[in-house]
Amino acid sequence: MSIPSTPELIEPSATDLAAFEALFRQSSAIGATPAGGLHRLAASAEDGQVRDLFRDWLEAHGFEVRIDAVGNLFGLMTFDPDAPYLLCGSHLDSQPSAGRFDGVYGVLAGAVAVSSLVRQLLERGEVPRCNLAVVNWTNEEGARFQPSLIGSGVFTGALTLDSAWESRDGDGIRLKDALQAIGYLGNDHVDLNIAGYVEIHVEQGAGLESSQTAIGVVRETWAALKRRVRFDGEQNHTGPTPMAARRDALLAAAHTITAVHDEALLHGVQMHSSVGRIEVYPNSPNVVPSRVSLLIEYRSRDVDLLSAASERLDATLHAIADKTMTSFEVESSVLRSPARLHDGFAALAHGVGAELGLSTTDSMTVAGHDAISLNRHYPVCLLFIPSSNGVSHNEAEYTSDQDMHNGLRMLTGLLHRACTSSASLG
Amino acid sequence: MSIPSTPELIEPSATDLAAFEALFRQSSAIGATPAGGLHRLAASAEDGQVRDLFRDWLEAHGFEVRIDAVGNLFGLMTFDPDAPYLLCGSHLDSQPSAGRFDGVYGVLAGAVAVSSLVRQLLERGEVPRCNLAVVNWTNEEGARFQPSLIGSGVFTGALTLDSAWESRDGDGIRLKDALQAIGYLGNDHVDLNIAGYVEIHVEQGAGLESSQTAIGVVRETWAALKRRVRFDGEQNHTGPTPMAARRDALLAAAHTITAVHDEALLHGVQMHSSVGRIEVYPNSPNVVPSRVSLLIEYRSRDVDLLSAASERLDATLHAIADKTMTSFEVESSVLRSPARLHDGFAALAHGVGAELGLSTTDSMTVAGHDAISLNRHYPVCLLFIPSSNGVSHNEAEYTSDQDMHNGLRMLTGLLHRACTSSASLG
Repeated sequence: MSIPSTPELIEPSATDLAAFEALFRQSSAIGATPAGGLHRLAASAEDGQVRDLFRDWLEAHGFEVRIDAVGNLFGLMTFDPDAPYLLCGSHLDSQPSAGRFDGVYGVLAGAVAVSSLVRQLLERGEVPRCNLAVVNWTNEEGARFQPSLIGSGVFTGALTLDSAWESRDGDGIRLKDALQAIGYLGNDHVDLNIAGYVEIHVEQGAGLESSQTAIGVVRETWAALKRRVRFDGEQNHTGPTPMAARRDALLAAAHTITAVHDEALLHGVQMHSSVGRIEVYPNSPNVVPSRVSLLIEYRSRDVDLLSAASERLDATLHAIADKTMTSFEVESSVLRSPARLHDGFAALAHGVGAELGLSTTDSMTVAGHDAISLNRHYPVCLLFIPSSNGVSHNEAEYTSDQDMHNGLRMLTGLLHRACTSSASLG
Repeated sequence: MSIPSTPELIEPSATDLAAFEALFRQSSAIGATPAGGLHRLAASAEDGQVRDLFRDWLEAHGFEVRIDAVGNLFGLMTFDPDAPYLLCGSHLDSQPSAGRFDGVYGVLAGAVAVSSLVRQLLERGEVPRCNLAVVNWTNEEGARFQPSLIGSGVFTGALTLDSAWESRDGDGIRLKDALQAIGYLGNDHVDLNIAGYVEIHVEQGAGLESSQTAIGVVRETWAALKRRVRFDGEQNHTGPTPMAARRDALLAAAHTITAVHDEALLHGVQMHSSVGRIEVYPNSPNVVPSRVSLLIEYRSRDVDLLSAASERLDATLHAIADKTMTSFEVESSVLRSPARLHDGFAALAHGVGAELGLSTTDSMTVAGHDAISLNRHYPVCLLFIPSSNGVSHNEAEYTSDQDMHNGLRMLTGLLHRACTSSASLG
């Protein structure tokens, strides 16, 4: 009786690393900002250009390209049409004047990893248990269109296609029309049988950098409460209108912003809160604002803390509306539960890190990722690589070539082990 | 020795009143909102349409039309090229979703009053001391382009033509280009010798309505302090970034908005304050805002109160910047002095009211008007007619036909007496 030997771990070749570098450099030039960042909003002309680059690269490297109705762009490598797919990816869109790495890294590293892996599997005659694929999810950022995670949300059924299509940007343009305009309103019905999903991303925190660790293996995610609140007041002239008669929706919003901030301060490092977006009407110097919408976020590992904060927010909004003679409406409220990621997949990742001589550590994420959407349905592994000073959503975001190479080796190795291991991830 | 007899006061005919009503109805349809208001921002397509209407009407009624480099549109009735002009007018632009009366009334009533007066002077063979003219000033409101009072500011030299041309709207479009696009970037050098200026406007307060007075004769105006302040923070992710590391420019702005409001409350009815406009970057739900500009106003009759408030605002901005780890810059700061209007012109107005059997009272204005720009250089009379509930910059703004007719009679009569009286206004 022979003990089955584990095949040697596949690593990207020097040519693969160079191909990744070239692809990343080309991506960085599309929507580049003078300060070295990226401004590439979802379904913008620049998003269209980088999608073209990505699609052409996939086709040139033997992938079958499929684009679904919400613009998710898949590159498939199919060994056996009846086998499930091991999928990896992230997103090519960015926040306004943001960094070159966020999301982009995971898509391009995924494409190169799958291409390298498939080529070497075929060379070896090694037959994987599953097919391989890479994906660019539409509008992960939620900057131009809300909510965030639209592409992965539609894919997993958390969001309907119609509501995604109807999402409008600040100029009233529908996502459906914006996708059509850049040629990425696809008509492929992409109903993949998913064996597992891997996403590799910059950390957006300073933990890996300060501990000099190559790879973070995300084990859990914070919960998030996201609310869109609208105050309604009354337009009037800012000059003659007596102060006592004003119903100022912007004043109500200002009280809310400070209250949301103060709530987080009550809980030390256990809670983060923010108001990142505000919409003001008519937003004219000489008019008392009549309508203001705010996007409020609370985040915590502890969902009970969020529930209590949510109740206090209700009371605070009522008090502010009374004080400012405005009314308010909660236009949407979403509680994203905290989650644990797949234990077996995480253990496999640590093992691959050890094989490669890359230091790994367990991590957690406060930020949302497409991986978190998929985690509700499939085995998911979310990996982090270091991010300088933890700065993200900023042009100064930075990860070194060495750290990106480490991540690419890690991703290739993990996909190899996951698609050939005899143990199921399910 | 004979005592010169005063000629009978000229009044608009029934045909003139009907012409005014028709013109006002046509204006109200251009940029009309479903709720019965007006949305006709300066140098927009709708502003172009109402200017066409106004220009055509002037030309059809014998006016010489002149358009200057900032789009001010003059209609001249010249008896003697060497005589000065008695000018009247206001503005055809509106705030967003505002009323049909603000500004518009003064321009259209002015056109009909001058036309009626000139016709009847010619019929009588009465020779006026001065020529007559009506004007539509560009961008009085300061809604789309800042500052307000741009057209009258350039005319009086308070603002340079270059700075007016370079003013940009929220989409970065220059006023010069917007005027060009609607065909109202004129090339007439309109250097009129001005004998006096009359503006008639809805009150934007409830004083006349509650005292059942037909006409307010404005004697003085409040001072105003207008500041544009920018806070600079740092873009970062609203998720993982520790609260203690955030430099949130929107939080700084929120503290400022509440502080500006609280300052006015210290002074009872002696001060009004507001923040009507805020510009936020990048204004994305998942990004800590890095740059926020606020347009702050304080208004008071007492300029010393404004000076003290201005000093306290400086201290408050420093404290807020320290607390939020942001920095701030005062991008502009303008103190508009309080002013008294011309006593002789006001006395003449009260006399005309008495001749016509229209009740008059002394008024004051908190809001700025083009008349206030001109008051620094010429004899000016600013008249008010009642405004229902004092609601303004709102679709519900309302003045009855009767009140508008009274105002048209008053304006016609005042122009008659002012252009034929032997006493100089100077």
